Amino acid sequence: MHDEEARQLAELLDAPPTPTRRPTVPALEAQLFRPVPLLDHGFVRVIDYMGDDAAIVQAARVSYGKGTKSVMNDRGLIRYLMRHRHTTPFEMCELKLHVKLPIFVARQWIRHRTANVNEYSARYSILDREFYLPAPEHMAAQSTSNRQGRGDVLTPEQTAAVLDVLRRDATTTYATYEALLNDTGDGTPRDPGEPQVARELARMNLTLNYYTQWYWKIDLHNLFHFLSLRADSHAQYEIRVYADAIGELVKHWVPAAWGAFVDYRLGGSFLSGEEMRIVRTALAGGDIHALVAGSRLSGREKRELLAKLELSSPS
Amino acid sequence: MHDEEARQLAELLDAPPTPTRRPTVPALEAQLFRPVPLLDHGFVRVIDYMGDDAAIVQAARVSYGKGTKSVMNDRGLIRYLMRHRHTTPFEMCELKLHVKLPIFVARQWIRHRTANVNEYSARYSILDREFYLPAPEHMAAQSTSNRQGRGDVLTPEQTAAVLDVLRRDATTTYATYEALLNDTGDGTPRDPGEPQVARELARMNLTLNYYTQWYWKIDLHNLFHFLSLRADSHAQYEIRVYADAIGELVKHWVPAAWGAFVDYRLGGSFLSGEEMRIVRTALAGGDIHALVAGSRLSGREKRELLAKLELSSPS
Amino acid sequence: MHDEEARQLAELLDAPPTPTRRPTVPALEAQLFRPVPLLDHGFVRVIDYMGDDAAIVQAARVSYGKGTKSVMNDRGLIRYLMRHRHTTPFEMCELKLHVKLPIFVARQWIRHRTANVNEYSARYSILDREFYLPAPEHMAAQSTSNRQGRGDVLTPEQTAAVLDVLRRDATTTYATYEALLNDTGDGTPRDPGEPQVARELARMNLTLNYYTQWYWKIDLHNLFHFLSLRADSHAQYEIRVYADAIGELVKHWVPAAWGAFVDYRLGGSFLSGEEMRIVRTALAGGDIHALVAGSRLSGREKRELLAKLELSSPS
Amino acid sequence: MHDEEARQLAELLDAPPTPTRRPTVPALEAQLFRPVPLLDHGFVRVIDYMGDDAAIVQAARVSYGKGTKSVMNDRGLIRYLMRHRHTTPFEMCELKLHVKLPIFVARQWIRHRTANVNEYSARYSILDREFYLPAPEHMAAQSTSNRQGRGDVLTPEQTAAVLDVLRRDATTTYATYEALLNDTGDGTPRDPGEPQVARELARMNLTLNYYTQWYWKIDLHNLFHFLSLRADSHAQYEIRVYADAIGELVKHWVPAAWGAFVDYRLGGSFLSGEEMRIVRTALAGGDIHALVAGSRLSGREKRELLAKLELSSPS
Repeated sequence: MHDEEARQLAELLDAPPTPTRRPTVPALEAQLFRPVPLLDHGFVRVIDYMGDDAAIVQAARVSYGKGTKSVMNDRGLIRYLMRHRHTTPFEMCELKLHVKLPIFVARQWIRHRTANVNEYSARYSILDREFYLPAPEHMAAQSTSNRQGRGDVLTPEQTAAVLDVLRRDATTTYATYEALLNDTGDGTPRDPGEPQVARELARMNLTLNYYTQWYWKIDLHNLFHFLSLRADSHAQYEIRVYADAIGELVKHWVPAAWGAFVDYRLGGSFLSGEEMRIVRTALAGGDIHALVAGSRLSGREKRELLAKLELSSPS
Repeated sequence: MHDEEARQLAELLDAPPTPTRRPTVPALEAQLFRPVPLLDHGFVRVIDYMGDDAAIVQAARVSYGKGTKSVMNDRGLIRYLMRHRHTTPFEMCELKLHVKLPIFVARQWIRHRTANVNEYSARYSILDREFYLPAPEHMAAQSTSNRQGRGDVLTPEQTAAVLDVLRRDATTTYATYEALLNDTGDGTPRDPGEPQVARELARMNLTLNYYTQWYWKIDLHNLFHFLSLRADSHAQYEIRVYADAIGELVKHWVPAAWGAFVDYRLGGSFLSGEEMRIVRTALAGGDIHALVAGSRLSGREKRELLAKLELSSPS
Repeated sequence: MHDEEARQLAELLDAPPTPTRRPTVPALEAQLFRPVPLLDHGFVRVIDYMGDDAAIVQAARVSYGKGTKSVMNDRGLIRYLMRHRHTTPFEMCELKLHVKLPIFVARQWIRHRTANVNEYSARYSILDREFYLPAPEHMAAQSTSNRQGRGDVLTPEQTAAVLDVLRRDATTTYATYEALLNDTGDGTPRDPGEPQVARELARMNLTLNYYTQWYWKIDLHNLFHFLSLRADSHAQYEIRVYADAIGELVKHWVPAAWGAFVDYRLGGSFLSGEEMRIVRTALAGGDIHALVAGSRLSGREKRELLAKLELSSPS
Repeated sequence: MHDEEARQLAELLDAPPTPTRRPTVPALEAQLFRPVPLLDHGFVRVIDYMGDDAAIVQAARVSYGKGTKSVMNDRGLIRYLMRHRHTTPFEMCELKLHVKLPIFVARQWIRHRTANVNEYSARYSILDREFYLPAPEHMAAQSTSNRQGRGDVLTPEQTAAVLDVLRRDATTTYATYEALLNDTGDGTPRDPGEPQVARELARMNLTLNYYTQWYWKIDLHNLFHFLSLRADSHAQYEIRVYADAIGELVKHWVPAAWGAFVDYRLGGSFLSGEEMRIVRTALAGGDIHALVAGSRLSGREKRELLAKLELSSPS
């Protein structure tokens, strides 16, 4: 399949562009179809897009009327929309990606329901012998402070041992998969004396680090929601690299919307009513540490607030 | 606004096309931005699109694997997908429309939830003095057989009388609306001695035949679902004209998918298990009228089945 | 219909309760079916509900595992979920409401797409002669500072004049509607010499303050999203009263989730990255006014930040 | 966990019922919480429900008005709604299930986007040593006629050999998983000299036949859509058993809606426009075989039509 893919890509890139009256974004055109390599065998690439920064503005001006023109320029309007969570104009842009990703990452990703998906089907087709192994610097122990996260990186010896068993099991299960399929690739059996087990059954023997792929299409508002969750430090590293790479593509596509997203969503913090009261009192001259300590926040919330304010917790 | 709109349209049509590597559809490019007039003041026009027939095929081949290539050509594959309700590849195409439509039509339309919408806001802006009046040939009496439909067309005299009162009430309510707004258009009062009632309040005095407008973006699968309900003979005439016009645009855009939709969805019929049993028995030599009469179908279902088979009901 | 409704309500309230093994909430059972009157003719009432605070916890413990039990009690877990936007456990609760509301309010409300709706159909049935008129204290002029809002309340004389024309137009359009329908209520014409115009046409003559009604069913996560937008001070008064009334019902239903929602969503503020930097610097000893003035925030953002911090803007 | 689950179930079943004014369905109350065993370790059980057949009728009568009462009884109205695809009243009922299922089944299931899901998280928790092995009678070879299906059942010897390797690989990968976790269950290491690899990493070594579990909540309309696809003969056996079991539960819950679904959706067939023309001509006296042979249907469509009519294809 890889040769075939390379051939198709070359064909797409060689083909002369066609004229369109639709909004185009030269900076994203330059990225079209080119896979951004991720992890050891994955990638993400843009297949198609609809709209640009101006399309967001155009939709907003339909909703909010002509008068907005005089008040704000386009960039200002986009920032206003993002800041005040007027989300529908961002839905007017659409991005279509081709993604190759480990199955356990796909299982997290698919939880975002407001997208269109066409996934490679292992009922119909045979999966390639490609599985994910973490790079040594991402081979970590269970976090002791955070039940869902990673802690210290393993030693080189420990890492080597873990990678060995992961590689061994993935290789073994694929060998079984191939033996069960008993298919030369064109449907004829490798071993005519053996059965060809149904593909929909044989695939159950593969481990969750095998790669799958899909076309994934989503509007910009829902993409920002996806990125705000998956480019976050709490997201698993293996999905975060995809979110980060998509973010880079979005930056080429809709730079004003991306800038607003970074400023007002990614980089910001939500403070609860009680947290706002504490901050206001501190700004009026109170001692922030004493105010936090004396507040009705729970211990966990106190630590969270101090972290948001980049203040050290009392030891 | 109309002059402004005309100016913008001319600008869009005069602008030189830009090159793109994305799929383009010359037949739809030729329709881009041009309003298709509908009813007395409405229109629909294409603002943007993503994908084409080939994009459906491309997504399907990701799902169903390389093997499909040898078995079916593109048109055959699209027809197979439509026939067997493999709907996700159709979600890979997206259409963005600008629609101007009476509010009572907008109220039906918005019930389709899987679309993106930016509607003109009468909280922010002032609605134009444009309301819908049915053409005489669509001025009908309540159906006596169908509780939601229209029956006989009114006589010319009756029609004239009805149009008179509709026009009178729409004109009166708009005059009140304008008086309440008391706004020259740039925010200054027409009558400085009178208040300027809040726009969000004043609008409540308009009748449901006033026009609104929106940007509406939807994927092809959900658009087909919309069209199957709204281009249907049971749909109200005033929304059906929009569905029909959109259908014409879709035909330019994705001719193979449109053909499959017409053959397998619009033109077909669903027969229940009992109806299939009756048809099978009749084809094996039974008398269809006797079989229907003797079946366990309800009276209403018997009439519906005969209608589907284009057989006359017993009088 | 009102007598019929009253009869049905009495019947529901008189009926003996039935035993169930599902989670029940006595405080909400006491509210079941009882209309909460809103505006001049509207109401909201609970028709059914699924789940309670414990159901949120139960779903979260499936996701996050047994270990959570030892770490947090139920209320603490619900607050943690809300604070960290772990939204799916809240989707495990569902509320079904019966709402009567002016059409222009229904048009805003329906923009929330993730709900199930069955609306009274004016294609099939005849709307009652009930329209909304604002109470004098809510009859306001257009805001001069906020393009979508209300400003000063009108004087009593102005208010009386506005109400007069609103009432006159609503009454006139309804009289026309009735004349067009020409229906005694059982399908027979009032005036046998006149046509009965199709209901789907006649309704277009009603003004947007006429009441409609619907059943509306939504999960708790999406309900909170609805309330965060519609119970907000920027929402139009006429939809805010519904949001507030629903909030009271939710408080009876899931008190822990409601408390967390109030603390972490309704009462809080989002600060952008730049705003957080300013606050942190001020807490470390800087002058907040000077920091805001010297920041790269736009003029509008500076005013917004000072408002969030309840500090006065420089005059 | 199993003992804990059994204890919780006993507790739920022992608890006295509580009174409610909501609609209750005794036949479903009797099924509440009780797992229906499926495959070798899976189950489905009802956790909660909202609504009943009467709730569908109640919502429909809001939409279609009072007049429907006189025309149709409840069962007739439900059948009418199903037949004419008036789907919104079915959305007024909601079902919440607890499902335990192999991961490869979960991957198919999750493609239905209009549901609420809380899945057991292997980032937080440790998966049990439970994997799916097909029963011998479901161990089949790849279909030669249908690219996604199963063909002949394997011989007993072949089956035994396949089950052996599936069992061996699942056991091996779990042993590796446990060694990587190095966790006695309460967080302390089994082998203090070895690292505890992060749970989110270790899980990637499990095969796709391991069991996961989730809470899944869906409205009746979307559940019927799910069942129409997954109780179909083209669905993979391993998901079909779940769909069938859910169907049995739905039958207890909303018997009238279920009956209508079986009659008008599950048991019926869609005929295209061309297929209807052929059937009509045959019923008017034509020879069905000759009409099919001479039609413009493709070869594949001809076979599909004859299959729907239960006529043999020409050899």
